[in-house]
Amino acid sequence: MAIDQTTINVPEGELAQRVETALERAGASEPSRRAATRAMMHASRHGVDSHGVRLTEHYCRMLGGGRLNKDPQLQVNYRAKASAVVDGDDGLGHYAAYRAMEVACELAKTTGIAAVGVRRSSHLGAAGAYALAGAEAGFIGFATTNTDSMVALFDGAQRFHGTNPLAFAAPVPRQRPWFLDMATSSIPMNRVLLHRSLGTPLPPGVAADSAGRPVTEPSQVEMLLPLGGVEYGYKGAGLAGVATLLSAILMGTTLDTDFIPMYQADNISEPRNMGHFVMAIDPSHFGGQNAFDTGILRYLEALRHAPGRAGGKPLAPGDREWREADRRAAAGIPVDPDTARFLDLQ
Amino acid sequence: MAIDQTTINVPEGELAQRVETALERAGASEPSRRAATRAMMHASRHGVDSHGVRLTEHYCRMLGGGRLNKDPQLQVNYRAKASAVVDGDDGLGHYAAYRAMEVACELAKTTGIAAVGVRRSSHLGAAGAYALAGAEAGFIGFATTNTDSMVALFDGAQRFHGTNPLAFAAPVPRQRPWFLDMATSSIPMNRVLLHRSLGTPLPPGVAADSAGRPVTEPSQVEMLLPLGGVEYGYKGAGLAGVATLLSAILMGTTLDTDFIPMYQADNISEPRNMGHFVMAIDPSHFGGQNAFDTGILRYLEALRHAPGRAGGKPLAPGDREWREADRRAAAGIPVDPDTARFLDLQ
Repeated sequence: MAIDQTTINVPEGELAQRVETALERAGASEPSRRAATRAMMHASRHGVDSHGVRLTEHYCRMLGGGRLNKDPQLQVNYRAKASAVVDGDDGLGHYAAYRAMEVACELAKTTGIAAVGVRRSSHLGAAGAYALAGAEAGFIGFATTNTDSMVALFDGAQRFHGTNPLAFAAPVPRQRPWFLDMATSSIPMNRVLLHRSLGTPLPPGVAADSAGRPVTEPSQVEMLLPLGGVEYGYKGAGLAGVATLLSAILMGTTLDTDFIPMYQADNISEPRNMGHFVMAIDPSHFGGQNAFDTGILRYLEALRHAPGRAGGKPLAPGDREWREADRRAAAGIPVDPDTARFLDLQ
Repeated sequence: MAIDQTTINVPEGELAQRVETALERAGASEPSRRAATRAMMHASRHGVDSHGVRLTEHYCRMLGGGRLNKDPQLQVNYRAKASAVVDGDDGLGHYAAYRAMEVACELAKTTGIAAVGVRRSSHLGAAGAYALAGAEAGFIGFATTNTDSMVALFDGAQRFHGTNPLAFAAPVPRQRPWFLDMATSSIPMNRVLLHRSLGTPLPPGVAADSAGRPVTEPSQVEMLLPLGGVEYGYKGAGLAGVATLLSAILMGTTLDTDFIPMYQADNISEPRNMGHFVMAIDPSHFGGQNAFDTGILRYLEALRHAPGRAGGKPLAPGDREWREADRRAAAGIPVDPDTARFLDLQ
């Protein structure tokens, strides 16, 4: 989401405080609002404004409407030595998802790899927040979720999958983690809205009209196309299916096509029973911590020194985000006018 | 790889026998040649001819040259409750990879999820063969490997990652598995060779010249571009990195850029120390087997009945491959002239 000229820059600490206060006023329990604030700040800090603090108002509305439980009591159901399912009790999804990653890391310490599902959850913000939490604890972290239908199937003419993200992160000695958080569509829907408001065409192969025909005129867009576009979109659609498989089918939660819409729904009182899936891998239980540390440093060194094409420079996944986080730590986090008003920042 | 007019069609059973006999003559031990034959037949059956029986001659040459150990003694090193590393003893990669998936399934029965790495391995053929073996045993299966550098980084001007496949498969009650086996580049290098021999241009955004400039003229191609092309290739490059992370960095094996080339190498006597990574998830240890079975059937029903755009029809991952397998079971498997000669089929 582009930040226009009328945004204001707010220091991280102050912004986090405002967000948490707003969630508190909406009735969210302390641990659940803490988690939601942490996840939104993760996104805002790394430049993923679509999943950042602008969602505060939405979450507050859902807490008020009853879709979200203000005081969720998480339940961790251990299912096997390396598996568990967290019941989110219909609270803010961030709370359940962070807890799931904590449990996954705890289990993986002794099992090598562990996965934890979440059910009875809701929107978790940026999936990368949880993968990164795993990496910060020393594990290869993975997180995914399914979301509202918005993306056509390959050769499809209807919204089918959500933008279903896949997020991976890995610890790097003395550096910030390797970090990939990607939607399985080429672009998010709010990129379409942005082009619509700017009156500029979209790149080819990223969106389609109501008949599934690829279009570049943003006003005609009815659905997104999966990563890979018109020719190779079966790959993006397949990956979106992986997110649904792990998050919804494996957990017995809502399929993408069955969700009450996140936005613009008449119904904001009924929980959505969203599922997520997180996983942690302990490098010390595979090839060993030393081999891993040496390997990832060599890999990143080679990657960052690989020659670029004219006008480009190869970056490791996350490098762009870390750079943005540094910029924003210094300059403050840009907040759009509506959100600034909602957070009493103006 | 396209099959031209001079191919001959060979019944599956006969073809498998010829392949195994060729590997036996080249000295491969019974279990290792069985596994390689099974994996090549998997690819040939499903229409992935690039990874099918045409590789028999290559493997025989590598067995003769010493790169591949004719009589590998696999060693399974259990590292934690849900993790293990298989030492492939420099034999045919298929042997170690099938064994890894067997161990992963065995562990996942009690742990819910398990991952097994492979080190000191070599080319494993189609990664999908191992994911599918997991699904056939009742698990969600995943398999990946890193391979020789062939794909540019996003904004890069040098071969960096291999075409690093990600393969997933999931069991479906009373149906053949959901099955996705995808390279993280848009196309394989042999698609370029095919276009070169046909004199037809490539689609845009799938390959680049030696300066990393996207080109469609196949004779100018020096490297592939990652899935997502010029605009969104950071996603494909990131996913290729996931394959390297799990297969090589986690196992302490060879990075993509460091491999002795699979083909056209002067050195066919030295092992390549390739790593792989496979994973199995037991649905009964997450949301439960019933929820999973119901969910995947509903999901596939919805997917296969979703409206298609003009001239298209949505398919589930694997549907095209299963259809091809049926066709080939009836008509025989097409074998190119060189391979037919090598297998004494002409």
